[in-house]
Amino acid sequence: MAYQLYYWPTIQGRGEFVRLALETAGADYVDVARGNKTAAAGRVSQKGMAALIYQLNSPDIAQPPFAPPFLVHGKVRIAQTAAILLYLGPRLGLVGKSEAKRIWTQQLQLTIADMVAEVHDTHHPIASGLYYEDQKPEAARRAAEFRRVRLPKFLAWFESVLERNPKGSAHLVGGRLSYADLSLFQLVDGLLYAFPASTRLALAKAPLLAALHARIPTHRRLAAYLASDRRIAFSQEGIFRYYPELDG
Amino acid sequence: MAYQLYYWPTIQGRGEFVRLALETAGADYVDVARGNKTAAAGRVSQKGMAALIYQLNSPDIAQPPFAPPFLVHGKVRIAQTAAILLYLGPRLGLVGKSEAKRIWTQQLQLTIADMVAEVHDTHHPIASGLYYEDQKPEAARRAAEFRRVRLPKFLAWFESVLERNPKGSAHLVGGRLSYADLSLFQLVDGLLYAFPASTRLALAKAPLLAALHARIPTHRRLAAYLASDRRIAFSQEGIFRYYPELDG
Repeated sequence: MAYQLYYWPTIQGRGEFVRLALETAGADYVDVARGNKTAAAGRVSQKGMAALIYQLNSPDIAQPPFAPPFLVHGKVRIAQTAAILLYLGPRLGLVGKSEAKRIWTQQLQLTIADMVAEVHDTHHPIASGLYYEDQKPEAARRAAEFRRVRLPKFLAWFESVLERNPKGSAHLVGGRLSYADLSLFQLVDGLLYAFPASTRLALAKAPLLAALHARIPTHRRLAAYLASDRRIAFSQEGIFRYYPELDG
Repeated sequence: MAYQLYYWPTIQGRGEFVRLALETAGADYVDVARGNKTAAAGRVSQKGMAALIYQLNSPDIAQPPFAPPFLVHGKVRIAQTAAILLYLGPRLGLVGKSEAKRIWTQQLQLTIADMVAEVHDTHHPIASGLYYEDQKPEAARRAAEFRRVRLPKFLAWFESVLERNPKGSAHLVGGRLSYADLSLFQLVDGLLYAFPASTRLALAKAPLLAALHARIPTHRRLAAYLASDRRIAFSQEGIFRYYPELDG
């Protein structure tokens, strides 16, 4: 049974963390809102933005998503990126089998999610409903603090996790690829797009993290995905946006 | 084996979501940083802030926490509030047995966590490392958008979840108390402290949520906790702060 991923069709955004896991595992999935906009017979196979909006707004759905991304898999319906990966991890072979490994992987994912939220707020420190142009002075202040304090602090923490992994520094958890490795690759990739100068400076002090960012995309299926037109480009619409004035 | 909770000893903060679960379940736990500041023999029984700082900074810890709260339970070490509750939920009888219920409960917790982060940023929209007094104009703008858009949106979503629960509107998930109910009580309690006027207005449109907030603290053990000196009072130091000017 194919996984149905619902996410905004024109940006990487938070949906990309789920896409990377599905693609790397070679899973059978439909990126629903990017599908054919002509509704097929019946609701289940309806695609395109209409299907996403239906799922978000229908009063018939007992477990409504607060926001995309969300995943539908048979009767299961899950929103929140980290919760989706918690569900997909064991099914896609992207998390260890023990409870300790699963919780540690999830903890890492939640810290990645915290940093993602902070990155978003560098360009939208007042409200996500307003344009960047409506909050530029505040964004300049927030981004300066982000570059000075938060970016080095988060990257140093991920570096220490790699450094202390008893199974070696190639992965965050144990000796095998997990969804947290994929998400960390995406986080660093986004940071290099949005804050190229500051991120390069911070990565100079985090060589294991820099190596992970270079090595992860050599995974065969992931490399094929990143080279395909399924990989949406970074842009000024997503979470990671390049505004030169915010890179200091 | 007692759970060891590590959190800042003088605020509710994010640690309170864990305290509420442990207290409601009547679990055996130590709130380490609030313990006796005299170190007992050996590290394991060391208490007070020194123990918290040690755990945060020691290079010997293979799975370091990024920030408090974190839980130590035998060899298990977990940070991130939602991950701690993911681990504690089944052990404390505060989550359903099926995978579907566990994931849905976790999804709700993550949405509560998102709102908590937004509440924090109403008084710290630029940087958590600066004082409120250093970011008052930005806080005024962010809080206005929070009151106008985010507060009603989040509360309406929680209301719809209660309304659509096929097992009735007394709980978020199924017909039994879960850690998400406790966290939602705490969220509404904090909102009523920090934004009394705006929250009362929003709750007038969310009667099921208002009823949950009134009913949850009648749970016997939780009521005893809330009346005890173990419950730290809300203050201008935590996540939920009352600045009249931010309540509009």
